[in-house]
Amino acid sequence: MADDHLLDDDLLIADSGPEAVDAEVRPDDRVDDERHDEENRLKPRFVSAVHDALEAGDKGAVYDLVEPLHAADIADLIELLAPGERAQLAAAISDLMTGDVIAELNDYVREDLMEALPAQAVATIAQQLDTDDAVQLIEDLDAADQAAVMAELEPETREAVSSALAYPEETAGRLMSRHFVAVPEHLTVGDLIDYLREDGDLSHDFFEVFVIDERHHPVGTCALSWVLTTPRNVRLTDVMKRDQTLIPVTMDQEEAALMFQKYALISAAVVDESGRLVGQMTVDDIVHIISEEAGEDALLLSGAGEGDINEPIREAYAARVRWLIANLGTAVLASTIIAFFGAAIEQLVALAVLMPIVASIGGNAGTQTMAVAVRAMATNQLTRSNTRRILWREFRVALLNGGTIAVLIGLAAGFLFSPMMGVVIALAMIINIAVAGLAGVLVPVIFERLDQDPAVASSVFVTMITDSMGFFAFLGLAVALGLASL
Amino acid sequence: MADDHLLDDDLLIADSGPEAVDAEVRPDDRVDDERHDEENRLKPRFVSAVHDALEAGDKGAVYDLVEPLHAADIADLIELLAPGERAQLAAAISDLMTGDVIAELNDYVREDLMEALPAQAVATIAQQLDTDDAVQLIEDLDAADQAAVMAELEPETREAVSSALAYPEETAGRLMSRHFVAVPEHLTVGDLIDYLREDGDLSHDFFEVFVIDERHHPVGTCALSWVLTTPRNVRLTDVMKRDQTLIPVTMDQEEAALMFQKYALISAAVVDESGRLVGQMTVDDIVHIISEEAGEDALLLSGAGEGDINEPIREAYAARVRWLIANLGTAVLASTIIAFFGAAIEQLVALAVLMPIVASIGGNAGTQTMAVAVRAMATNQLTRSNTRRILWREFRVALLNGGTIAVLIGLAAGFLFSPMMGVVIALAMIINIAVAGLAGVLVPVIFERLDQDPAVASSVFVTMITDSMGFFAFLGLAVALGLASL
Repeated sequence: MADDHLLDDDLLIADSGPEAVDAEVRPDDRVDDERHDEENRLKPRFVSAVHDALEAGDKGAVYDLVEPLHAADIADLIELLAPGERAQLAAAISDLMTGDVIAELNDYVREDLMEALPAQAVATIAQQLDTDDAVQLIEDLDAADQAAVMAELEPETREAVSSALAYPEETAGRLMSRHFVAVPEHLTVGDLIDYLREDGDLSHDFFEVFVIDERHHPVGTCALSWVLTTPRNVRLTDVMKRDQTLIPVTMDQEEAALMFQKYALISAAVVDESGRLVGQMTVDDIVHIISEEAGEDALLLSGAGEGDINEPIREAYAARVRWLIANLGTAVLASTIIAFFGAAIEQLVALAVLMPIVASIGGNAGTQTMAVAVRAMATNQLTRSNTRRILWREFRVALLNGGTIAVLIGLAAGFLFSPMMGVVIALAMIINIAVAGLAGVLVPVIFERLDQDPAVASSVFVTMITDSMGFFAFLGLAVALGLASL
Repeated sequence: MADDHLLDDDLLIADSGPEAVDAEVRPDDRVDDERHDEENRLKPRFVSAVHDALEAGDKGAVYDLVEPLHAADIADLIELLAPGERAQLAAAISDLMTGDVIAELNDYVREDLMEALPAQAVATIAQQLDTDDAVQLIEDLDAADQAAVMAELEPETREAVSSALAYPEETAGRLMSRHFVAVPEHLTVGDLIDYLREDGDLSHDFFEVFVIDERHHPVGTCALSWVLTTPRNVRLTDVMKRDQTLIPVTMDQEEAALMFQKYALISAAVVDESGRLVGQMTVDDIVHIISEEAGEDALLLSGAGEGDINEPIREAYAARVRWLIANLGTAVLASTIIAFFGAAIEQLVALAVLMPIVASIGGNAGTQTMAVAVRAMATNQLTRSNTRRILWREFRVALLNGGTIAVLIGLAAGFLFSPMMGVVIALAMIINIAVAGLAGVLVPVIFERLDQDPAVASSVFVTMITDSMGFFAFLGLAVALGLASL
C-alpha cells in the first residue's frame, strides 16, 4: 500500500532499517535546532540574544541571528519582543521583512508596525502581498492612513483591494484570493497543460482548476492530481467533479470554515450573487480562521473578549470590565437573597459558612454544561433537531453529579454540624446542580435562537441562576426545615 | 489581477452584471436548499421526516430522503438521530454507508455503530478507507473486536493498519497516510507526468510530489502547480522547494497541526527516526485536529473533559464529577476561612451578605486572565521569552478592572451600609482582582513548566485562590478596620 505510488519500488526496499541521520534532512529539521525548542517555539536564549544585540545597537549581529529564520518564525520573534523593540528589529532586518512575515504577524502587532511606517512603505509591502493579505494589512489602518496607502498602490492592486474592502469584514469576499485558474468547458487535459506552461504564474500555488461555462459560472472542479494522472486527449469535463461546494461572496468566514472542514476542501470557488466565479478560498487561509473561531469560545465564555495578549491594555480592560460589571450585578442580586435571610444567618452562622459551597459548585456544574453546549453548537452538532435529547442527556448527567456531591457534602455537614444541616445542604446541592444542568443548555440555546453568539453572554446568566438558586435553595430549605427562622 | 490566470479574458468581460441564477450552480448550492438551513445544517423538518420514515419502517422512503445527501451530511444525520435509530438508518441505506460517511462520523457514534456490526462487515468498511481513517475506525474497538477485524483484513491493509497502530495514539505515525508520490532526484517534469499517467491512481488526491535521494530521504517537495507550469525538460530538482518541513513519525498531532498552521502547509512528509520518508500528512486531516485542539481548551477549562455530546453519560459523569469534587474541596477550604470569622459575622450579618460578591468577581477576573493565558500558550504566543512581560501586562489590566469595580461596589456599600464598609469591600475587591490577575497567568504557566496541560487543572487552583482570598481579604479587613471583632 505504502509503495503503490512509488516510481521505483526498489528504492523503498533498498537499505531499510535505521541508519545515520543526514543533517540536511533530519526529521527534526525545524525542531530542536539551536533556535527552536522541541515544540518548535523560539528558544528564550535565542530571543534574548536578539534582544541584547538590539540593545547593543549591533544591527549586523541582529541580522545574522535572524537571517536563517523562516518568515513565520521572524513574525513570532517580533511578537515575542517588547513593543518598543519591534520597530528597531524591523529596521535592522528591513530586507527580511517580506510580505510573508507581515502576513504572519498578529493583527495588533502588524497595526503598530505599519502605523510607524510612511504610507509609501506600507504600499510597497501591500504590493508584494496576495490580495487577501494586502486587504488584511490595509483594513486595520485608520481611514486617513488607509486612503494614503491606497493612493500609493498600483492601480491594479488598488482596484483589487478596494473591491475586497467593499465586502463586509469576515466575509468570503474579503478573504478570497483573486488568483485562480478558470478554463472553459471545451478544453482537454493537454490544452490545459499547454496553457499553464505558457501563461502559468509560479508565484501563486493552486490546487484545483475551475471549469466555467460561457456565463462564467463554475460547472466543475479538477484537482491537479487528476489532471496529472489523465491522458492529454481526455476532456476536462470528463475528469472534473461536478458536485462542488460554492462559497457565496457574502458568506461569513466562520461558515466558510465549517464548509471546508465538513467537506474536506482544499480550495473552493467563490461566486457572486449571479453565480459568477469571482475568486477562490484556499484551505491554508481557512486554517487560521478555524483555529481562531474554535479558540475564541474559551475566551468569550470567560468574558475576556478577544483575549489577544497583544491587544492594547485599554482595549483589554474595556472588553473585560464590561463582564465584571455585569457579574457585579448578578452577585449583588444573589446577595439580596442572602440579605433576605439575614435573621436566619444571625441565629445560625453555620448557614453563612456553608452557603458559598452550594453556590460555587452549582456555578461550576453550570459552566461545564454550558461549555459542552456552546462547543456542540459551534460545530453544528447541537441543532434544533436534537436540542430536547441533549437537554435530557445533560439533565441526567447533572442528577448523577448532584447526587454524588450531595452525598459527600451531606455526610460531612451532617457530621460537623447537625444531621438536619446535612439534609438541607444535600437537597440544596441536588437542586442547584440540576438547575445548573438545565440552565447550561437552555441559556446558550436561547441566545442562539435570538441570533446572538451563545458564547458571549451565556456565562453571566448561568452564573446568576446558579448563584441565586444556590443561596435561595440552601437558606430557604434551612428555614423551611426549621433550622432557623426569618 | 483577477484575470491574469484566465485562459480567455473575453470570458470575464462577457455579459458581466447580474443575471438570472442558474439552478445547478446557485451560489448557495449546498446551503439553504430544502434539506439545509442557511447555516448548512440539516433542517429539523428534514431530520424528523427521516425519523418518521424510520418509525413507519418505510426503508424506501428513508433511502429516497437520504440518497441526495453528501457523505458528510449523512454522517451529521446519523449523529442527529437518537442512538436507537442510528443502526436502523444505517441498515436502511447500507449501500450509502460509504467509507467517507464512516470517516466523518463522531468517534463515539462510529464506535457504537461498529460494535453492532460483525467483524467481517467492519473489515469490509475498513478496506475501503484510507489507512489513517481505517486506523481511526479500528483503534476505537476493544481488543477482542480489534483482533477479529484485523484477521478479516486483506494482508496489505492489515500490514498498514498494524504498522500505524504500532505508533502511540495522536502521533503523526498514527495519522499519516501511506499514499504518497515519491520520485528520485534525476527525473524531469516530463518523466514525472508520464509516470503519473501510467501508474497514477485517481482514487487518492495528492497535492505535492516528494523528491527523495537513494537512501529514501526527502530532499525536496514539488507543488503540482509548479509541475504543471513548467516545461517537460526541466529537472524536478530545479523546481522543487528544498526548504521543507518534515514531520517526525513520533510528533504529537497538536504539534504537527501547529506546524501546518505556522508554515501554511498543504501536505508534509512524515519521516522515521532515520530520516526516511514513510508517509505524508495532508491539511484536510489536520483541519479536524486544529479545530479539536483549539476547541477543547474551552471544555477543559470548564472541567467538562472531552465534552463531546455523544460521549456516553457515564463517561461524561466520570469526567465532570472529578472536577466538581475537586471544586468541593476548594469551596470547603474557603468556608473554613469564613468559619474562622464566624464571630465577626454574628456581630455584623452584612459581612455574610457582601462576602460572596468579593469572591465571585475575583473568580471571574481570574477566569478571564486564565483563559487568555491558556489560549496564548496553546498558540505558542506565550513562552518563557515573554512570560514576565505578559504577567506585568495582566497585572496592570487587573488593577484597572479592580479599581473600577472597587469604586462601584465601594460607593454602593458605603451608601447602603456604612462608609467604612464601603472602604473595606473596595480594598478587598482591589486586592482580590489583583491576585486573580497574577494567579490567572502564574497557575497555567506553572502547570506548563511541570509539563502538564495548563487547560486541565488551572481552573480549580485559580478558583481556590480567588475564593479564599476573597473571603479572607474582606473579612480580615473588616476585623482589622474595626467593623467587627473575632
